[in-house]
Amino acid sequence: MTPPGTRDLSVLFDPRSVAVIGASDDETKYGNWLGAQALRMAGSRDVHLVNRRAGTVLGHPASASLGETGDTVDLVAIAVPAHGFEASVEDALAAGARAIVGVTAGFAELGAEGRAVQERVVARVREAGAVLVGPNCLGLTDSSTGLTLSSNTMPEGRIALLSQSGNMALELSRVLAARGQGFSRFVSLGNQADLGVADLIRSCAQHDGTDVIALYCEDFGDGREFVAATREAVAAGKPVILLTVGSSEASIRGAKSHTGSLTSATAVVDAACRAGGVYRVTSPRSLADVASVLAAYGPVAVGNLVVVADGGGHASVASDLAESAGVRVPELAPELHDELRTAVGTGGHVQNPVDVVVGPGFEIGSFASIVDTALRHPDIDGVLLSGYFGGYEHYGAGMARSEEETALAIAGSAHRYRKPVLVHSMYPDGSATGTLSDNGVPVFAAVEDATNCLGVLNRAGARRPLPTLPGPADRPIRDTGYWTSRQIIRDAGIPAPDARLVDCAEDAVAAAGAIGFPVALKAMGLLHKSDSGGVSLGISDEDRLVEELTRMRDTLGVSSFCVEELADLRAGVELIVGVQQDPRFGPIVMVGFGGVLAEVLVDVTFELAPVDEAAAESMLSRLRSTRLLDEFRGRPKLDTAAAARAITAVSALAVSHPEISEIEVNPLLVTPSGVSALDARIVLAE
Amino acid sequence: MTPPGTRDLSVLFDPRSVAVIGASDDETKYGNWLGAQALRMAGSRDVHLVNRRAGTVLGHPASASLGETGDTVDLVAIAVPAHGFEASVEDALAAGARAIVGVTAGFAELGAEGRAVQERVVARVREAGAVLVGPNCLGLTDSSTGLTLSSNTMPEGRIALLSQSGNMALELSRVLAARGQGFSRFVSLGNQADLGVADLIRSCAQHDGTDVIALYCEDFGDGREFVAATREAVAAGKPVILLTVGSSEASIRGAKSHTGSLTSATAVVDAACRAGGVYRVTSPRSLADVASVLAAYGPVAVGNLVVVADGGGHASVASDLAESAGVRVPELAPELHDELRTAVGTGGHVQNPVDVVVGPGFEIGSFASIVDTALRHPDIDGVLLSGYFGGYEHYGAGMARSEEETALAIAGSAHRYRKPVLVHSMYPDGSATGTLSDNGVPVFAAVEDATNCLGVLNRAGARRPLPTLPGPADRPIRDTGYWTSRQIIRDAGIPAPDARLVDCAEDAVAAAGAIGFPVALKAMGLLHKSDSGGVSLGISDEDRLVEELTRMRDTLGVSSFCVEELADLRAGVELIVGVQQDPRFGPIVMVGFGGVLAEVLVDVTFELAPVDEAAAESMLSRLRSTRLLDEFRGRPKLDTAAAARAITAVSALAVSHPEISEIEVNPLLVTPSGVSALDARIVLAE
Repeated sequence: MTPPGTRDLSVLFDPRSVAVIGASDDETKYGNWLGAQALRMAGSRDVHLVNRRAGTVLGHPASASLGETGDTVDLVAIAVPAHGFEASVEDALAAGARAIVGVTAGFAELGAEGRAVQERVVARVREAGAVLVGPNCLGLTDSSTGLTLSSNTMPEGRIALLSQSGNMALELSRVLAARGQGFSRFVSLGNQADLGVADLIRSCAQHDGTDVIALYCEDFGDGREFVAATREAVAAGKPVILLTVGSSEASIRGAKSHTGSLTSATAVVDAACRAGGVYRVTSPRSLADVASVLAAYGPVAVGNLVVVADGGGHASVASDLAESAGVRVPELAPELHDELRTAVGTGGHVQNPVDVVVGPGFEIGSFASIVDTALRHPDIDGVLLSGYFGGYEHYGAGMARSEEETALAIAGSAHRYRKPVLVHSMYPDGSATGTLSDNGVPVFAAVEDATNCLGVLNRAGARRPLPTLPGPADRPIRDTGYWTSRQIIRDAGIPAPDARLVDCAEDAVAAAGAIGFPVALKAMGLLHKSDSGGVSLGISDEDRLVEELTRMRDTLGVSSFCVEELADLRAGVELIVGVQQDPRFGPIVMVGFGGVLAEVLVDVTFELAPVDEAAAESMLSRLRSTRLLDEFRGRPKLDTAAAARAITAVSALAVSHPEISEIEVNPLLVTPSGVSALDARIVLAE
Repeated sequence: MTPPGTRDLSVLFDPRSVAVIGASDDETKYGNWLGAQALRMAGSRDVHLVNRRAGTVLGHPASASLGETGDTVDLVAIAVPAHGFEASVEDALAAGARAIVGVTAGFAELGAEGRAVQERVVARVREAGAVLVGPNCLGLTDSSTGLTLSSNTMPEGRIALLSQSGNMALELSRVLAARGQGFSRFVSLGNQADLGVADLIRSCAQHDGTDVIALYCEDFGDGREFVAATREAVAAGKPVILLTVGSSEASIRGAKSHTGSLTSATAVVDAACRAGGVYRVTSPRSLADVASVLAAYGPVAVGNLVVVADGGGHASVASDLAESAGVRVPELAPELHDELRTAVGTGGHVQNPVDVVVGPGFEIGSFASIVDTALRHPDIDGVLLSGYFGGYEHYGAGMARSEEETALAIAGSAHRYRKPVLVHSMYPDGSATGTLSDNGVPVFAAVEDATNCLGVLNRAGARRPLPTLPGPADRPIRDTGYWTSRQIIRDAGIPAPDARLVDCAEDAVAAAGAIGFPVALKAMGLLHKSDSGGVSLGISDEDRLVEELTRMRDTLGVSSFCVEELADLRAGVELIVGVQQDPRFGPIVMVGFGGVLAEVLVDVTFELAPVDEAAAESMLSRLRSTRLLDEFRGRPKLDTAAAARAITAVSALAVSHPEISEIEVNPLLVTPSGVSALDARIVLAE
């Protein structure tokens, strides 16, 4: 059943009739390439070519305008110059188009004026109940319905590609075709003025012809919708792989001018991928490689890997690369060791890695029994074979036959045990390696491409329940001074040191007497109190307290103070816990090592808000220096459960108050027996 | 002039006569492959085949033994079973061999017994004034002298490959051949029983036919000799690239059984590469890629890169990958921006990255003027071109011609300015891309391979002067108790807190009176005093001091104590500074963030000892959390110069006392005004 909110894109992917406005004989124009591709469908659909000058185009009769044909046309692709785009859209709608593909460029990617035209067109299209892809896109294809409406011929297969870059799509099509794979659907997203990537992910999630969804995105639009859409795809059994940009200032500049995109911080995109169950890659080849492995084995993860090689160098290099990708190459359980020793014979080494010594009397079939033996063991999640396999055929017809049979046997084991086997071969174009790929065992020309895949697959991990944003709280927050902020934090269930608000020395002394020395004295009403001398720590007696209060009152002009129980920082570790708004993904929780060292250590992690306690614990364990939270010499384990509760509370607080643009507790002191918020800052949206 | 210590390998690479003992018609045996390769030299050298059964082998007359021929033979390759190896060596020496290549396996890689045989053979060979390669190797080649004595035909070129793995050499030969490159020399090192990698590096450093030296090593032998040899090669203008293993437990197991290697910790190998000026890679493809770039441009480094693409996706992806490889893709100086705008024309984006919009009227030659303009600017160190270039030829003969001319122009610019241009192309096998490679511009099928090269090249950095080991000090150290150790540290010029050695409460109190409270009390004579309650910090008064001393005396049975000025840890940061012996590379300096957090943070770096102050400062700046040493809110910059002096002193102390196996100062407290060694430990070699 189609989930609510999913737009009906059936006409987009399976129109009965298609038109190209701006079809051209000029081989340098998109209207030519699009027209040629559209004509490939002339046998199965009505195809209309429109060119102002009419006559014939690409050897086919052309109309001067769409209205001239008198026919209803379901899907219209427009490739005219920018100044003629709006009029062409009107013509399309008048001809009954339910889907429009805007190839024409020159809109939001150029700036505000172009964006205004784009928005006007979208309003018109939506008003008419139609959908628009692009503008500034290169068309689309659907191999299950025979739709060929992109500027280039795309290889057919079972991977859906949704891309904001035409050239990136071309590169991917070449890389995938070289692997014997192709597109179930290809949609060039362009500026995503109407249909966005989320809409298309949802549509492909319901598409029987699609096994894997691949994305090249610069702008995610409504980021939460994006995440919801990817989760639907994953739930429908279709893994999603993302290649995006924005981890450098240079690419942020590039994306802005390319599609007018507003990129999100790369760590926020990582958080979105975790929430969405999306595999993230950093290059086209990696995307194609991961797509191959997913197409062969589904969303597997390999914790324990057996490396099998026919040479010591390959065995060791593969092991190093696997471990550095985060995959374990463990010593083997004794019974598995013995079974592999039998399979390997007397000449090789078993350990993990398994190094097969190929010499006289060696049976190629051993590779298959070694793989089968390894996969059969419950401890083992997968096998990486690295080296010469695929090249033995050169030693003669007998070897060639054995290699073929062995390849089939290896593929059989992989799919019988439902555990992945990846093969790196010095002979990736050999017969046996071809047999491996044809039978669902991905083959790689370089071992690091195989280990990179395993690393990507392992990193996706388990999805946590989608963080949904609750409605706003009844009473919005208006005052964000320190005293009020700490009260808000305390009301949210986060412990804070005992404190009193005072306005004179006498009351300060009384407060310190009630709380107990040592205390901290903080000036109220200053924006950055630490920087301006408005925070005094380690006050051990009344005289010092009065002295500091007087100084602050006289030099900073403040009249209100907070006298606070002083925390012993040496008792634990300081964290920074905050929530900030990302323009695409909404409220984002940040957790890291904090205090004054936060900006120096930069050890932080992110998640889409709100987070539950399990997700919060997971954030803490993901920090680079997470071991600081464990027990070590002289100090017991810190109370990470209390920290997780505090993180959860801060995130819930932020999402129920959308008027807050930023909230930060820094430091949140975590000790073996709990947590304490030593400072709090809330900033309201303007 | 040949440096002293270099062994004369001219007979090894250019023998007048060659013999293969164990030549065979059996196609599964090395003696067959070796014999076939040797016979390729029959026109230019005397080639003798020896097989116990005599007759003919490979259609060539064979002798039953080498003596039978009556000829002097310069170089003998031996491929008999292990039990016949020693006798064959004797035969070879008797026939006047100056060089022996031991293909036979079954020696040190199997264990102690095999190692004993190997050592015996080496002694014999050296006694006779000859050299041995291997055993357990696959032979060698030299394309400048037409020497073909390896088991496989190797492609010819200008890269010398020295490898401890035969299959790794085969993979490298295929990958390099695919790039139109090959080997000036190939030596399969095997067990390095006599000639080791250092000897062969030195020989190749003097070889005119070699431009680049590539290494696959598992065992470095005398690591200092290895470093000295690579420095000679680099000084002779021949860059050195290393692929090794040992960064995972699994590969350490693998290497041990493969060649009997004792691997060094990967961080120590990194330190050796820094000292040697060696480029380190982690895979065969990366080695071939880096070799291509070095062969084209020499040892360049690219600080500031201009990315040029013909599509926004490629521009941004390339920028992200470059930056993550440690290469800057900076905004452009205004005049460069303007010049590039002129070269790009009105349709594209300049920024950095440069995104060329290809459309009607676009001149392919723009790519060449863009590249030339960028390289001409003094701020710019190189260009990465990414995308469709190489594929435009498909648009017609005119485009094809333009693309060719443009390729030549790009190559011309790169070599005129002596700045690297790397090209990633979706059409790596196109005509123009072929022209680029033929003219010294490396082409990559995947952009991450290009950016990976830039990262590797940038990491090698400037070599510091080779750390030479001074002779031992006059008086070896014998006592390493805490008190003595701290005295040794102080005598080396490293400040330590004021302290007194006492043996009763009364003297302890007097000492504290002289030093000033608060103090630390440390029990003497315990191996791990912190763990057993033998260290008491923060003692603020006499009563506490006496109480603690009494406790230690009574519960730990100690009678000697150190009363020490207590350092204020909050005044600075704790470092760990030490020196340890590596079995291959000798004394290694380690510097990192220390104190009790050392084992948790694991933020350490290494160098071959001794280090001078510049190298020590460099170690500090290389630490992940190096910013902890800078000024930040409320605390001035720490005295890294004093820290560097202390590190230098510790390293000099260790190298002048080879009886020390380990020395550690942890923590070395660094404050804004100096350093202080708060603990010191010296361990003597057994």
